[in-house]
Amino acid sequence: MDYTFLKACRGEETDYTPIWIMRQAGRYLPEYHTVRDKVTFLELCKTPELAAEVSIQPVDIIGVDAAIMFSDILVPIEKMGAHLEFREKQGPVFPSPIRDQAAVDRLGIPDPEDDLGYVMDTIRILRRELEGKAPLIGFSGAPFTLATYLIEGGSSRTFLNTKMMMYNDPGLYKSLMDKITDCTTTYLKGQIAAGVQALQIFDSWVGILAPCDFAEFALPYVNRIITELKKVSDIPIIYFANNGATLIEQSLTSGADVLGIDWRINLSDVVKRVDGRAAIQGNMEPLALFLPPDKLEKRIANVLEEAKGARGHIFNLGHGIVQQTDPEKAKLAVELVHKLSRRA
Amino acid sequence: MDYTFLKACRGEETDYTPIWIMRQAGRYLPEYHTVRDKVTFLELCKTPELAAEVSIQPVDIIGVDAAIMFSDILVPIEKMGAHLEFREKQGPVFPSPIRDQAAVDRLGIPDPEDDLGYVMDTIRILRRELEGKAPLIGFSGAPFTLATYLIEGGSSRTFLNTKMMMYNDPGLYKSLMDKITDCTTTYLKGQIAAGVQALQIFDSWVGILAPCDFAEFALPYVNRIITELKKVSDIPIIYFANNGATLIEQSLTSGADVLGIDWRINLSDVVKRVDGRAAIQGNMEPLALFLPPDKLEKRIANVLEEAKGARGHIFNLGHGIVQQTDPEKAKLAVELVHKLSRRA
Repeated sequence: MDYTFLKACRGEETDYTPIWIMRQAGRYLPEYHTVRDKVTFLELCKTPELAAEVSIQPVDIIGVDAAIMFSDILVPIEKMGAHLEFREKQGPVFPSPIRDQAAVDRLGIPDPEDDLGYVMDTIRILRRELEGKAPLIGFSGAPFTLATYLIEGGSSRTFLNTKMMMYNDPGLYKSLMDKITDCTTTYLKGQIAAGVQALQIFDSWVGILAPCDFAEFALPYVNRIITELKKVSDIPIIYFANNGATLIEQSLTSGADVLGIDWRINLSDVVKRVDGRAAIQGNMEPLALFLPPDKLEKRIANVLEEAKGARGHIFNLGHGIVQQTDPEKAKLAVELVHKLSRRA
Repeated sequence: MDYTFLKACRGEETDYTPIWIMRQAGRYLPEYHTVRDKVTFLELCKTPELAAEVSIQPVDIIGVDAAIMFSDILVPIEKMGAHLEFREKQGPVFPSPIRDQAAVDRLGIPDPEDDLGYVMDTIRILRRELEGKAPLIGFSGAPFTLATYLIEGGSSRTFLNTKMMMYNDPGLYKSLMDKITDCTTTYLKGQIAAGVQALQIFDSWVGILAPCDFAEFALPYVNRIITELKKVSDIPIIYFANNGATLIEQSLTSGADVLGIDWRINLSDVVKRVDGRAAIQGNMEPLALFLPPDKLEKRIANVLEEAKGARGHIFNLGHGIVQQTDPEKAKLAVELVHKLSRRA
């Protein structure tokens, strides 16, 4: 079965524009809470039956064209040997930040089946249950984004420690990035072997880099991952450089089949700059789901119109759906994308 | 006396590229702490002698080509009648966010001399003490950025309440923005009357808007302020849309003489897009001040090279200098900008 989402990723003609939504398996859905309330966030990530259940919810309830496995970008990082806690309100915390060579040297490369079997099992359950319904997207964080969590010890506003390491101790920074890159490559190869049909690499924080720093300190590691993956599989790879409007031309050299685009740029501008060298995914402002239905329809029509001329367009929000969103509005958005994009 | 900074703002030829640094009067300077330790942050803003003292410090110590008055963008907002607290680590907090018409209606328009006389006095002291040394920049926040603080009740990551108001209650949003715009216009006219020689309008948070929302919900209010100011004065006006790489063409229509540019974009790209319609200010990555001296010199040379062809370039960081910066490095940066840009 050839799914519309996968065809769009490959730049093939489709009958309508496929849509999925970043964080679609998440807190805006009451059905998600029913599952999540019984376990901690990390337990949910590590329990294949439950992770699979919440991954399928948006396909059934909202009607999206692809499922993405429920997990977190930090799940493999924890298995490198960095103790991780998810604290209420504060988010992820690494109580022992990685800031010297000894700490980098202590990090290991987890084996996908031995150390991250719960993720691989989640993928296998999902492939079975989604058969004929929707394709399955696997994912990881990009090395730069993952490194910021390890170096800062959690989320950050200024990324001071990360940039200080980049600028003052580039050798240390490189050794950490090399290790994270190896971990990520191995992890994504494991996901491919387990059965994912597309991959998204999330570079959530890369937008805080100047273009010259992106070229030196982030992009080469993404390139290396994609090069390695392309040797073993031809499934579509999506690279999402959040807040990356000025990084698009460089991102094209990553080898990704699809560029994920945040909401800060007009897609018509992206279509021009990408010039058929990749498919594009995005990019409606997530909060547009709070617009009244008539204005939401207009907004969706605009995004579809701006994407014309793209070599493949996958509709998505420009960032994760926020938890206060009404699920009915998300459902309406999916219907509108399908209706408005369908060829007459 | 015609200052190099003012000439560059007007797009005139200069012997060297002038530089000032956002947040140059601030916590990276030990001399600032000596003053700040005696009073609270708001007391410092409201004590003209002390505010003037810290404003002059970077001119004397670092050697920048312009002074900016020490204050905070929320100082006039407090005088609209919104109780403001600066809490340690949390930053500015408005305990009663503005989210309904009654709250908007209660906001007043402060009179520059009667209600904000300490700012006007700071300006008068500074003009006297800076005479022949450096020009004085006044400033305000832009209406959108100021509105986010009032609507969110402080800083925010998602700006959920602001966008919900924009999308669901555009009439309420507009009435708040109209009032903030009137307040800001009056406040900046007061600064001009008191003697500032240039103005910067800080739109710190506008980069979280999609281009179509910027056009509808932020830019018209900036335009209105600049149109009003241009009726009474021809001092240069700088508009700094932080994280605004995709908003440059629109920002040109604001009427600003200078566009402030953050560090996420190559200036060569900006020069092309601005095409002589404004001077440009920026945009070195603030953390580049942590680079070793040889690499710092290279970075500065790159920014200067990229700015070639601009109708006026004022060197600055792409965002505020961070408090962990070594003042000696800031001083070195000023010397390097002057040396490397000086015509042979």
